[in-house]
Amino acid sequence: MKHTINVVGMGPGAEEMMSFQAIKALEDSDVIIGYSVYLELLGDRFSDKEFLSTPMRKEAERCRMCFEEALKGKKVSMVCSGDAGVYGMASLMYEIGKEYEECEITIVPGITAANSGAAYLGAPLNHDYCVISLSDLLTPWDKIEKRLKAAAEGDFCIAIYNPSSHKRADYLKKACEILLEQIEETRICGYVANIGREGTVCITCTLKELKEKQVDMFTTVFIGNSNTELINGKLVAKRGYHL
Amino acid sequence: MKHTINVVGMGPGAEEMMSFQAIKALEDSDVIIGYSVYLELLGDRFSDKEFLSTPMRKEAERCRMCFEEALKGKKVSMVCSGDAGVYGMASLMYEIGKEYEECEITIVPGITAANSGAAYLGAPLNHDYCVISLSDLLTPWDKIEKRLKAAAEGDFCIAIYNPSSHKRADYLKKACEILLEQIEETRICGYVANIGREGTVCITCTLKELKEKQVDMFTTVFIGNSNTELINGKLVAKRGYHL
Repeated sequence: MKHTINVVGMGPGAEEMMSFQAIKALEDSDVIIGYSVYLELLGDRFSDKEFLSTPMRKEAERCRMCFEEALKGKKVSMVCSGDAGVYGMASLMYEIGKEYEECEITIVPGITAANSGAAYLGAPLNHDYCVISLSDLLTPWDKIEKRLKAAAEGDFCIAIYNPSSHKRADYLKKACEILLEQIEETRICGYVANIGREGTVCITCTLKELKEKQVDMFTTVFIGNSNTELINGKLVAKRGYHL
Repeated sequence: MKHTINVVGMGPGAEEMMSFQAIKALEDSDVIIGYSVYLELLGDRFSDKEFLSTPMRKEAERCRMCFEEALKGKKVSMVCSGDAGVYGMASLMYEIGKEYEECEITIVPGITAANSGAAYLGAPLNHDYCVISLSDLLTPWDKIEKRLKAAAEGDFCIAIYNPSSHKRADYLKKACEILLEQIEETRICGYVANIGREGTVCITCTLKELKEKQVDMFTTVFIGNSNTELINGKLVAKRGYHL
């Protein structure tokens, strides 16, 4: 019989935002592996588990650790924030899993920041939408730029992950400049910081104003499509019902 | 004090895929309003609740019903499958809510089919992705076509909702033909029917093969990006780690 490793999406952070399936997968585990920031979000419910981690940028080692622990006969879950299949460890687990034929992977989905953040702002993704990360650690910037242009061209609602970091303080500004080549300055936008955690901040603004905002890496940014309206302070991408 | 109406994403269907927050919102309600197919998925836990519904296409009436019931002093939740903010009732609730100043809306996010379906197939959305509905009930087809072209142009991973219906039996074929103008025939694709419900079906194929598939409206379709690989039968959009 194969060793099954769960790759679990925690949602935004608070336990109440996890699915029952995710909670159960973690409860059934002997060891929970993940980036330390996410492990710290797990509550007392899991205090009897062994927690293992590797530093940021050591993602491949973290994945390998899952397989090695499973081969010892332990039940293993890897945790990711949001959904493991959205900029999470799911794909890397499959890639590294090629070396571990005795193991199989189960993905337990979670609520990703595009959707949990949208809930705070109203309904900014309530039509066709794109999710784009501005991190160029693994993706060349010209590819990110091409995707921003395509998203504007297609009049998608847009959710932007990793809008900034210490080394990339001006990336959101650069992204807004690219979008402004095709989208009007008054387009309704918004962003949410610390979704589902302490100190949630929720802001709406125009695309022109967004260009000048300083946000951090725990922020998800939303750009409306051409049919997005601000209704009582909420971003609403209208679906086109005749009322 | 305002009447709060919860608009709750149920996730794919099974109760174990709902968040604790969603369960709690429904448990705290006097009346649960939704499309009958979704109400039937709710388990015994909610058997003491009043259930109200309107037929398909009567979405505005269903929203109005929420506000009218809340004005009677009842605690109301509207349920949607997946996430209420992804082709769900969130935006229409805000639009109609303009007429009901005494009420306010809270969106409780859920796991949408793009993410729950992806978990079955592997990691098909593990990079920048687009979500596109092929339903032209509320969106003109030329707009859908423009978005498909932009998604291909941007080399996004793509999740397609509402790929077919009785009246639109050839829409997935049409969509594939549009994508094939820019994407090679051998591009890895897949689809999942009845996510999180009985009779889940999970298929991988090429884009050329997808063009000839007959799928139903309970199916979510996935198109890989140029960096998507089939690994042990799973769709994996690689993030670009050097291994």
